[in-house]
Amino acid sequence: MTVKLPEWTRGNGPEPDVVLASRIRLARNVRGLPFPHQMSDDQGRALLETVTGAVRRIERDWHLTLERLKDLTPLDRQFLVETHLVSPLLVSEPIRQQAVVMDERQSISVMVGEEDHLRIQVLMPGLELSEAWNVANRLDDALEVELDYAYDRRLGYLTAFPTNVGTGLRASVMVHLPALVLTRQAPAVFTALAQMGMVVRGLYGEGTEAQGSIFQISNQVSLGRSEEELVHNLTMVAEQVVGRERLARQQLERNAAVFVADRVGRAFGILRHCRILSSDEALRLLSEVHLGIELGRLPPFADATFSQLVSMTRPAVLQKMAGRELDPGARDTLRADVIQEHLKNA
Amino acid sequence: MTVKLPEWTRGNGPEPDVVLASRIRLARNVRGLPFPHQMSDDQGRALLETVTGAVRRIERDWHLTLERLKDLTPLDRQFLVETHLVSPLLVSEPIRQQAVVMDERQSISVMVGEEDHLRIQVLMPGLELSEAWNVANRLDDALEVELDYAYDRRLGYLTAFPTNVGTGLRASVMVHLPALVLTRQAPAVFTALAQMGMVVRGLYGEGTEAQGSIFQISNQVSLGRSEEELVHNLTMVAEQVVGRERLARQQLERNAAVFVADRVGRAFGILRHCRILSSDEALRLLSEVHLGIELGRLPPFADATFSQLVSMTRPAVLQKMAGRELDPGARDTLRADVIQEHLKNA
Repeated sequence: MTVKLPEWTRGNGPEPDVVLASRIRLARNVRGLPFPHQMSDDQGRALLETVTGAVRRIERDWHLTLERLKDLTPLDRQFLVETHLVSPLLVSEPIRQQAVVMDERQSISVMVGEEDHLRIQVLMPGLELSEAWNVANRLDDALEVELDYAYDRRLGYLTAFPTNVGTGLRASVMVHLPALVLTRQAPAVFTALAQMGMVVRGLYGEGTEAQGSIFQISNQVSLGRSEEELVHNLTMVAEQVVGRERLARQQLERNAAVFVADRVGRAFGILRHCRILSSDEALRLLSEVHLGIELGRLPPFADATFSQLVSMTRPAVLQKMAGRELDPGARDTLRADVIQEHLKNA
Repeated sequence: MTVKLPEWTRGNGPEPDVVLASRIRLARNVRGLPFPHQMSDDQGRALLETVTGAVRRIERDWHLTLERLKDLTPLDRQFLVETHLVSPLLVSEPIRQQAVVMDERQSISVMVGEEDHLRIQVLMPGLELSEAWNVANRLDDALEVELDYAYDRRLGYLTAFPTNVGTGLRASVMVHLPALVLTRQAPAVFTALAQMGMVVRGLYGEGTEAQGSIFQISNQVSLGRSEEELVHNLTMVAEQVVGRERLARQQLERNAAVFVADRVGRAFGILRHCRILSSDEALRLLSEVHLGIELGRLPPFADATFSQLVSMTRPAVLQKMAGRELDPGARDTLRADVIQEHLKNA
């Protein structure tokens, strides 16, 4: 595995000041095999063979590669989790027949043997749900030619977990909301989102604590609506959140300019001059510096996007970049070095 | 009152890496008048007249000026406290007949009407107790020609508080011990000092908490020893503390280089880029940056000594420099500006 960060981290999509990435995920299962949590080893092998055959027949058109998780080192697996290409569930022990199918740019990643037989994912930078849906839909069509999906005329696609039945679609956006967090408006916004049927989670899905003020917003239910409706719906919601965050940034500049200047200045000063940096602190400080950049108070990161820096400071990505395993102490000093390479002097 | 910082802040004395300043204080009282806490207003006026007369007769030789505290603004009085020229007790209400006599360079300050009738103080930068004692002794002799001191052949100079009886001398050194604090050796060193009859207090005498790792070490008792013995004694003690602190700095560099680099780097980064800074945080961060400078890890302060910067960030000194009274919010932003003028880029 080369140390290439996935496409979504390039940060060049629409509304990049707030929306870091968009993701479409389709849950699909192959008819005639139990869901993964009930599969025997033989059935797991059968699934993997079936999927491998299907992928092989479309891999040239789609530039796909299938990798079995047991052929990856624990570090490589953790890299995939930290860059959001696979879920923590896929890499959790025991590793048997799980696999991941990715394209060259790592904007496509299909998890094999996670909660469902297939989880087709498309990740793109910025607010790009429609385009991500188009890609996911075409890949789904291509796979459906090769695979016999479990489908019910009345219910739609059958899935391991009931809330995914129907379209099997989950759309989500990863958003950076530092101003809504600083102005303490985030809880009210999240309550409103929940009332609209949206789920809000943290950067790595660990509840709604503001780790670096990065949140994932996704649709709760996929039954009873068309895919286009779901995608349109979340796009509208995301646009509203973008508007709220931009307004909060203006409020901060208008009502608390010195407070903000102090806050982002301190974050910049620490990142610029520290020698030991944990991944949690890196995330928090990068978030504040990025706010400073978006407000025009700090110079842009050099040769890296915010999303890339956030990814690069995670433990496994950092070690993959270093080309070797490092103990936590060595990681904390390397992390400081890596960030400082990308900080221009204010 | 012009905004001139006293001589002791110039930082150019012996052992300047550890000893910020040396002070000699002589407690003296005029025969025939009760101690200040028992004086009537009339007696207070009589004391002030007597002292004013004496000072007038020697002021040309000594370049002295007498100022009555009631002629100073509260800000001017607080300035004198913050720069260690007078004690908090002298400026505490009610302000009646108290006065302060200072020389041009503010290395001499005689408090009139504090705990004793006269507190003759000489402050010098670095470890300079002998020289400070010489100056204090000559000034004391000059005043003794003009004033009838309360003196007992057997006890020595009589003072309001029993522990000062005898020579009336208290010698003290202001030391910066960041490495002893960081390596947690300070408590053991202070215990040893207490066993040698020394008192250790914080920067403004408020217990032994490590405010900016600056401490004042002084002799406890002045009875039964000659002035020269007391001065020599504290000088020896101070030399030992200097040695211990230097050793601790070497230990830090040898055993915890990255930890120290991180610590002083963060302090520098925050001071360099913050916009809001309290006086307590300024003291703490300046202390760590100064350690970084002493270790050769950071460039020296520009156009200011550590002692000057510590003084300049205190509330009243800061406002005197600004030429006007400022609310706490305005002070906190000005403080950040002032420090940043004196920080070169690392």
